[in-house]
Amino acid sequence: MADTKILLDESEIPTHWYNVVADMPNKPEPVLGPDGKPIGPDALAAIFPMALIEQEVSAERWIPIPEPVREIYRLWRPAPLYRARRLEQALGTPARIYYKYEGVSPAGSHKVNTSVPQAWYNQQAGIKRLTTETGAGQWGSSIAFAGQMFGLEVRVYMVKVSYDQKPFRRSMIQTWGAEVFASPTDMTESGRKILAQDPNSPGSLGIAISEAVEEAASRTDTNYTLGSVLNHVLLHQTIIGQEAKKQFEKVGDYPDMIFAPCGGGSNFGGVAFPFLADKAAGKEVRLVGVEPTSCPTLTRGHYAYDFGDSSGFTPLMKMYTLGHDFVPPGIHAGGLRYHGESPLVSQLYHEKLIEAVAVPQLATFEAGVTFARAEGIIPAPESNHAIAACVAEARRCKETGEAKTLFFNLSGHGHFDMAAYDRYFAGDLTDYAYPAEAIEAALHHLPKVG
Amino acid sequence: MADTKILLDESEIPTHWYNVVADMPNKPEPVLGPDGKPIGPDALAAIFPMALIEQEVSAERWIPIPEPVREIYRLWRPAPLYRARRLEQALGTPARIYYKYEGVSPAGSHKVNTSVPQAWYNQQAGIKRLTTETGAGQWGSSIAFAGQMFGLEVRVYMVKVSYDQKPFRRSMIQTWGAEVFASPTDMTESGRKILAQDPNSPGSLGIAISEAVEEAASRTDTNYTLGSVLNHVLLHQTIIGQEAKKQFEKVGDYPDMIFAPCGGGSNFGGVAFPFLADKAAGKEVRLVGVEPTSCPTLTRGHYAYDFGDSSGFTPLMKMYTLGHDFVPPGIHAGGLRYHGESPLVSQLYHEKLIEAVAVPQLATFEAGVTFARAEGIIPAPESNHAIAACVAEARRCKETGEAKTLFFNLSGHGHFDMAAYDRYFAGDLTDYAYPAEAIEAALHHLPKVG
Repeated sequence: MADTKILLDESEIPTHWYNVVADMPNKPEPVLGPDGKPIGPDALAAIFPMALIEQEVSAERWIPIPEPVREIYRLWRPAPLYRARRLEQALGTPARIYYKYEGVSPAGSHKVNTSVPQAWYNQQAGIKRLTTETGAGQWGSSIAFAGQMFGLEVRVYMVKVSYDQKPFRRSMIQTWGAEVFASPTDMTESGRKILAQDPNSPGSLGIAISEAVEEAASRTDTNYTLGSVLNHVLLHQTIIGQEAKKQFEKVGDYPDMIFAPCGGGSNFGGVAFPFLADKAAGKEVRLVGVEPTSCPTLTRGHYAYDFGDSSGFTPLMKMYTLGHDFVPPGIHAGGLRYHGESPLVSQLYHEKLIEAVAVPQLATFEAGVTFARAEGIIPAPESNHAIAACVAEARRCKETGEAKTLFFNLSGHGHFDMAAYDRYFAGDLTDYAYPAEAIEAALHHLPKVG
Repeated sequence: MADTKILLDESEIPTHWYNVVADMPNKPEPVLGPDGKPIGPDALAAIFPMALIEQEVSAERWIPIPEPVREIYRLWRPAPLYRARRLEQALGTPARIYYKYEGVSPAGSHKVNTSVPQAWYNQQAGIKRLTTETGAGQWGSSIAFAGQMFGLEVRVYMVKVSYDQKPFRRSMIQTWGAEVFASPTDMTESGRKILAQDPNSPGSLGIAISEAVEEAASRTDTNYTLGSVLNHVLLHQTIIGQEAKKQFEKVGDYPDMIFAPCGGGSNFGGVAFPFLADKAAGKEVRLVGVEPTSCPTLTRGHYAYDFGDSSGFTPLMKMYTLGHDFVPPGIHAGGLRYHGESPLVSQLYHEKLIEAVAVPQLATFEAGVTFARAEGIIPAPESNHAIAACVAEARRCKETGEAKTLFFNLSGHGHFDMAAYDRYFAGDLTDYAYPAEAIEAALHHLPKVG
């Protein structure tokens, strides 16, 4: 009987990250300052260490992974590639389905692939303390873990409503020794301003970002960290796709289509970019980002310069956006509720090198439950988006009789998202479509550039 | 750099379970019926399939694992053996520390090692439906997963207070397609009797067992399943220790001491019994069961015949017991709150082939947090008991300078136990010692035999 899991040795953990910029037909669009002019690396130096800023703007194809980072990766990497035979049987499809399982990490998702190097470079730069924001807590717990690995203090501003409603990610953060605060706090100017207006503010990701950046910018021993969107974050995630390529090689197969959830883009970029290199070299492979219909950034957003945060503090990035003041409905895939999209993913989509599809919430949970009943693992709601698109394609293959090779990134487990499954079983979940008027309205809120 | 994880291929999943009975110096004591006479296999046939009853009484050393069971094991097995280098460094110990991580299973603990074969043998016997009880939900979710793998209906009687307070294990059970009821229910005689006395009964494990057994005994298409204590359950868990032995062989090391949590005994038996075979063959290895001071069955209980359940429905088993009506304090290691102990583990302890130690609750969480901050994984409260004993030994090695090889079973992750960590950080947890009067009192409640 053939193996269910395709494993690699620790010696096969990639030694370099893959920088997709090297293989892009056009250079990335510049990041602009408030004056509409491209900003230089020094503009970021107040909150990021130089090594990460260099990665952010690098055009080198391969960037070496420091050995102490690979040492931490060994705690869970290489991540297994599964052949989903039981899912194939359940669907009765001639397609071969594979998934890469990133939920084996201590924090339970792919996020630690970048939190670890971010903590490392900061520690090497003499930084003592990291700040960040977190919504549902996936990123907050990932950076708490990474900070603990390298002896850095970590302070997480967690959106108050999540802080109150989702105590268990908070407990994880504390278990790894980090401090976590319900944002808005009275410790920052930004927080106090909000509290003065509304002492009972439930907080928002925008406010939490402002607090985390403010603290980092105001202290020389403190830097800020981010879990998606930026080039260096996507870069770190490319170990996923690189490992997967080796694993496919081992079994003599290669994906026809790759599916990954697409929110800020690090999940999708991490798995897809290394395959995009093959595509640039003439290989046929379709790369599909899967987003929620309630927050359809790529499929229905504008390709334009916009702020990365909702308050308009960040530099301007050229990206697909629904408008930085767009507030998506409260779906359970918290990691996909972002108004924008990684500039790299956006440009590749704009240039038609990758594809995107939007999936309604109920279909994602239906697919997730089908998956769990076949393969055992209960997926994160974000991952359910990739599963839904892959399952739809596998069902299409059943109709056409095509024996395609399908591959998706199972970016995390759902152990901290069972309340969402509860609501699904109780029939309390609904689908949200993004209304056409909202797209029109968002146009008028995009910042004027040039 | 040497590997962090010692991995095996799927082809190295054991082909047989190891039956420790074959190597015991004395035969197991018989199980007695209500008349004080040994019961025959047929007494169990109403609720168990014959294949499992045969395993329960077998003296064969090796029992083959059916291929369809090994197929399901492939979804997560072989489980990795970790060399805990970062923990060793954190403790500054010359000891080498290893742990086997069973939390990689879909249900997050070792319990599925036995739920899967139990479901398989029942399906082969033509059974359509399984019942069981569950407290915190680890076992309930494990049997839900296993039932789904083989197309069996599963009905879980979950202690009402847990059903209300721990909704997420319940959601897992539902995700895998099983039904879960707050016990006491009005669906069984036993449940109705309790509800008549107290309509607001919070339930108990004893009541839930009665309901599950009653349903199984009253329907020919339905059997009952149990997650610990019985010989066949411990038998199935021996794949843990067998894999570990191969993994130690791979790195040319061998444990001086092995630690495992000890509640009903399946965790301890699973990891320790295969090493006991080596000990029987003259090898030196110390096997230590670790229990809570609040429920110190081996270290302070009586070795006597007692009921397996709190209501006195089961046959009598010779085991270490605190008295079947003993209600342990509400510690967070729910899996270790059992008045008795597996008869096999009890007899081996009585014959001084294995050791036991009791650890107070706060020390277990302190050890668990130390572990999580060094190694990343957040352990289940049950597993924290083994970690606490191992860490204590590693600290002793630091004082004496001994470079011992220490090994513990990390039987599960703590993702569904974060409320317990919360209480620990908030300073709300306390230690419980088992009072001497209670031991004396328990003596008077043991059933009279012969």
